Amino acid sequence: MDRLEQQMQFALEIDKEKQIHRQTYCSDNKTMENDAEHAWHAALMTILLSEYASEPFDVLKTVTMLLIHDIVEIDAGDTYAYDDAGIATQAERELKAANRIFNLLPEDQAKQMLDLWLEFEAGESAEARFAKVMDNIQPIMLNAATDGRAWKEHEVKLSKIIKRNKKTPENSPALWEYMLNHFIMPNVEKGRIQDDRE
Amino acid sequence: MDRLEQQMQFALEIDKEKQIHRQTYCSDNKTMENDAEHAWHAALMTILLSEYASEPFDVLKTVTMLLIHDIVEIDAGDTYAYDDAGIATQAERELKAANRIFNLLPEDQAKQMLDLWLEFEAGESAEARFAKVMDNIQPIMLNAATDGRAWKEHEVKLSKIIKRNKKTPENSPALWEYMLNHFIMPNVEKGRIQDDRE
Repeated sequence: MDRLEQQMQFALEIDKEKQIHRQTYCSDNKTMENDAEHAWHAALMTILLSEYASEPFDVLKTVTMLLIHDIVEIDAGDTYAYDDAGIATQAERELKAANRIFNLLPEDQAKQMLDLWLEFEAGESAEARFAKVMDNIQPIMLNAATDGRAWKEHEVKLSKIIKRNKKTPENSPALWEYMLNHFIMPNVEKGRIQDDRE
Repeated sequence: MDRLEQQMQFALEIDKEKQIHRQTYCSDNKTMENDAEHAWHAALMTILLSEYASEPFDVLKTVTMLLIHDIVEIDAGDTYAYDDAGIATQAERELKAANRIFNLLPEDQAKQMLDLWLEFEAGESAEARFAKVMDNIQPIMLNAATDGRAWKEHEVKLSKIIKRNKKTPENSPALWEYMLNHFIMPNVEKGRIQDDRE
């Protein structure tokens, strides 16, 4: 098949990401966010907040990571950040999806996108580290803006948020401090996040 | 106000873009696409299709342009590509919106984003030219994928599509040829786009 034909087939396939809904309410407090919206939001926040990273990073690479990071959910579905059972099988389901979907692209781009997705998942490069910060702060911002509705519905515990963000303080001290003071702790105080500190 | 506070207020304000619906059906042929989804899709297509530009361009700059290009519609609303009455007042409505929304950011970033949006609108740099190609090809791909539904509903004429894309052939000959042969002409032949050629 022609190179451009393959690229366009991929471009059309990923349109399905717009139907994959997350467990986050948009700021209108009515609609559930989908993966495409989340990717757009986190990518744009990367461009605006890059100054708060602990180390220099390639902004285009992180933006690309975030634009593609949830494409696997077209096949694997959304796994909620605090769903332990789902998380146990997530890696296998998502790897299979990544192989199918990215391989719609011409070989060089398929490899490039698959490598980039694996790099994001591993979280061990400067680019992946900042992408993870953005992937975490964006829904926390929305949860706070909707009076902690998603946290309440899922009975989320503070320890789970802290665990999921265990690298955020070192990857971006300023953003972590902001999240903690503006989004997380006020919602612990209001009982919307369960306070399970000893 | 604190710099990060301003950036976060902007980040939350633009969440509203997810509620601005366009006149394009997603490939599921059920949901109308919104601006955030469209921006995500066009930005990612830029990364994958940059090789087809007629001239070298800064990919991150074009991606950023596309991520922000419809933020003005939070205030100004979506103006359909073939709505002549709406288009007459569009520039004024959108400039006002750009001034309000981008100025939520710290001064340096507000200027940067406003300049970038104006550059996109002017369409006179290599980055803006490719961004315009992406902004046009993405909905045309989706219209073709949904059997021309949006074209039929709006009784769109071939001459309007050609006019809107008048610079596409020079900005990306390969993409224009692909659009014409795979998306546009087959739908003219099926009567989904009105054939008004002399």
